[in-house]
Amino acid sequence: MDFFTLLSVEEAQARLLAAVRRRMPAERVATAAATGRVTAVPVLAAEDLPPFDRSSVDGYAVRSADTFGASEALPSYLTVTAEIAMGAAPTVPLNPGEAQKIATGGALPEGADAVIMVEHTEQSAPDEIAALRPVSPGENVMHRGEDCRAGEELLPAGRLLRAQEVALLSHAGILEVDVVRRPRVAIISTGDELVPADQVPAPGQIRESNGQALQALVRRDGGEPTFLGLARDDETQILALLQQGMAYDVILISGGSSVGTRDLTSELIGRLGSPGVLVHGVKLKPGKPTILAVADGVPVIGLPGHPVSAQVSYNLFVTPLLRQMQGLSPEPEFRPTVRARLTKNVASATGRTDVVRVRLFRRDGELWAEPVHGKSGLITTLVKADGLVVIPSAREGLLAGDTVEVEVLE
Amino acid sequence: MDFFTLLSVEEAQARLLAAVRRRMPAERVATAAATGRVTAVPVLAAEDLPPFDRSSVDGYAVRSADTFGASEALPSYLTVTAEIAMGAAPTVPLNPGEAQKIATGGALPEGADAVIMVEHTEQSAPDEIAALRPVSPGENVMHRGEDCRAGEELLPAGRLLRAQEVALLSHAGILEVDVVRRPRVAIISTGDELVPADQVPAPGQIRESNGQALQALVRRDGGEPTFLGLARDDETQILALLQQGMAYDVILISGGSSVGTRDLTSELIGRLGSPGVLVHGVKLKPGKPTILAVADGVPVIGLPGHPVSAQVSYNLFVTPLLRQMQGLSPEPEFRPTVRARLTKNVASATGRTDVVRVRLFRRDGELWAEPVHGKSGLITTLVKADGLVVIPSAREGLLAGDTVEVEVLE
Repeated sequence: MDFFTLLSVEEAQARLLAAVRRRMPAERVATAAATGRVTAVPVLAAEDLPPFDRSSVDGYAVRSADTFGASEALPSYLTVTAEIAMGAAPTVPLNPGEAQKIATGGALPEGADAVIMVEHTEQSAPDEIAALRPVSPGENVMHRGEDCRAGEELLPAGRLLRAQEVALLSHAGILEVDVVRRPRVAIISTGDELVPADQVPAPGQIRESNGQALQALVRRDGGEPTFLGLARDDETQILALLQQGMAYDVILISGGSSVGTRDLTSELIGRLGSPGVLVHGVKLKPGKPTILAVADGVPVIGLPGHPVSAQVSYNLFVTPLLRQMQGLSPEPEFRPTVRARLTKNVASATGRTDVVRVRLFRRDGELWAEPVHGKSGLITTLVKADGLVVIPSAREGLLAGDTVEVEVLE
Repeated sequence: MDFFTLLSVEEAQARLLAAVRRRMPAERVATAAATGRVTAVPVLAAEDLPPFDRSSVDGYAVRSADTFGASEALPSYLTVTAEIAMGAAPTVPLNPGEAQKIATGGALPEGADAVIMVEHTEQSAPDEIAALRPVSPGENVMHRGEDCRAGEELLPAGRLLRAQEVALLSHAGILEVDVVRRPRVAIISTGDELVPADQVPAPGQIRESNGQALQALVRRDGGEPTFLGLARDDETQILALLQQGMAYDVILISGGSSVGTRDLTSELIGRLGSPGVLVHGVKLKPGKPTILAVADGVPVIGLPGHPVSAQVSYNLFVTPLLRQMQGLSPEPEFRPTVRARLTKNVASATGRTDVVRVRLFRRDGELWAEPVHGKSGLITTLVKADGLVVIPSAREGLLAGDTVEVEVLE
């Protein structure tokens, strides 16, 4: 695998995303349980919002014309004929020269076209107020349907539902929503040296951990993970698990850091279906031995065995894939970062994307990013990084003191 | 509630956080299910990581001294005596002048102190390689315990567990972890005009939606929400739900946007226990009528009834509270933002914190932030905002074209 014949990260991403046409079907879920899901179709309002003309302040419902010209020196005097109870329909129409007491959110009585704030009135007699200012028609009123009219689009398709979208849907009486089904992701780990995490490794063995980490990452990205198990570096075992994985929407297989097993994995993935392996190896450090494939519509991603490399490769290839399959843009439209200064030079070969893990800290009121070093085999470096700095393939490296954009790792 | 006698957001936050001493107790959970939880105590390694000397490359295990002075012109010739199987303990010790084939992650045999990469060797005879370069002692070897020694701290207390921490713990054979119990949060909505979201509002009524939204926000922040229900603006009903809430770790009560019910809620919260109401009203827009209280150790937060205000107030007061109760710093150490230019002037009174919701969009390659306007009563504005711009109390406003830091809403 000669580095110079490898694809760039951008080319590899594009090739994978172009080959995956599968979109998840829709399913109906309770709005209350829909946080983190993506709308499958536009959501339309079933009724006007608000459903009636409401006051947006505490005060008095009035006919605005009755207040025209009112001032502190020359107030308009209005007779208070009713107090509108919250949650009730007003029963008394408002006639010229009258006012009705109303609280924020109260329904305007027939005949009223504005609300004067209580602060702009004075009690001039037991059943009378003095309006000290004029109000214009519609002032302090939210009109029926002003927020949204029945039949209008409340949310477009492809919208990620956050707490605020759930609030809006609940408010609009939409108790169920059609969302994209979560992609079901099969996870396979391979390696003769691996034992399940709950077993004590014999000499020469180590515990499998990518299975757990990938499940957590898939859940973060809206997928539904299933760990299919651990295969030895053995054609029959790997192929059996891969074939089992074909019943899922995506297959992730990690392991095979030595050249021989990497080639075996790639060869077996190629047998699953067409078009087969699209990318075998990427100009990326760490994460070079990544395999990207599609087998009869099922994306199959071969991730490096080393936990640090597996995670870098996952974030660059699997996250955009799962987003696209859920009807989102592959990359988030806005990628929040913190800006920090590099503590030291970071070298990078042109033509290769380097993902540098950094620890963030404050010194003299400034935020600094310290590259997390250590041999790539060290797994504790995984948790020492607060964020990532991506050095694009066109850059040759970064200098100490440079201000960089750090993506905080979640 | 005179605006000028109110507390600033910073003072109000500080007063609440200082009064809440309650920390959640620890509980033991499966590492696999621990994502999003916070460690209650430091996690120590039970064994050395890696558990044996491992190769970090594909190549040959050697005695480094045998390669000193080797070059392409004058290689060192070594006899290959074994191939080390992955996942097995090496059985053949390495003698001077010998090499053993080893893959990445393989265990070094007794006598070897380095690995020469396969690229730096040539097969010179069926059982012989030529080393074309020297390797130094320890080169391409991860030593036993180099990553972490048994008894050393793998993770400190108060660490939020992300996928990478779960991977590290699984790798280290730590299958259960002591985390902070999720704060149990009771949620109450009040308002005579509200009906449950699954009912059709009669004239003058609207659907309750804060309950759903607050549950989603509490889950996002690591808490375990329970919706206790909807109370009318009635002393007996509100007090009964508040007293029920005293069995939880935190109470959130939203509603009461009119002056009278706001005062009633505050008065009833004051009866629950000491020290009682700490803050009643904050210099914040929207979100002014926020109530912060502690009753016999239980924080009680009165949120405005309007969904937009409730959410702004939640993010400023409840999120830091839940973080602190879980042993995290009240504010995240690093707050990622996107930088965008304002499309128009935004006014703000000095002495008041303004939280401006903005929609983000790109134009001519630049990112712009457009303030989301509309009367504060409009609930659809909730979902039109991509992020928030906070105008601190010391600022008088922002100008069109200013570059601002936008916190993306999640």
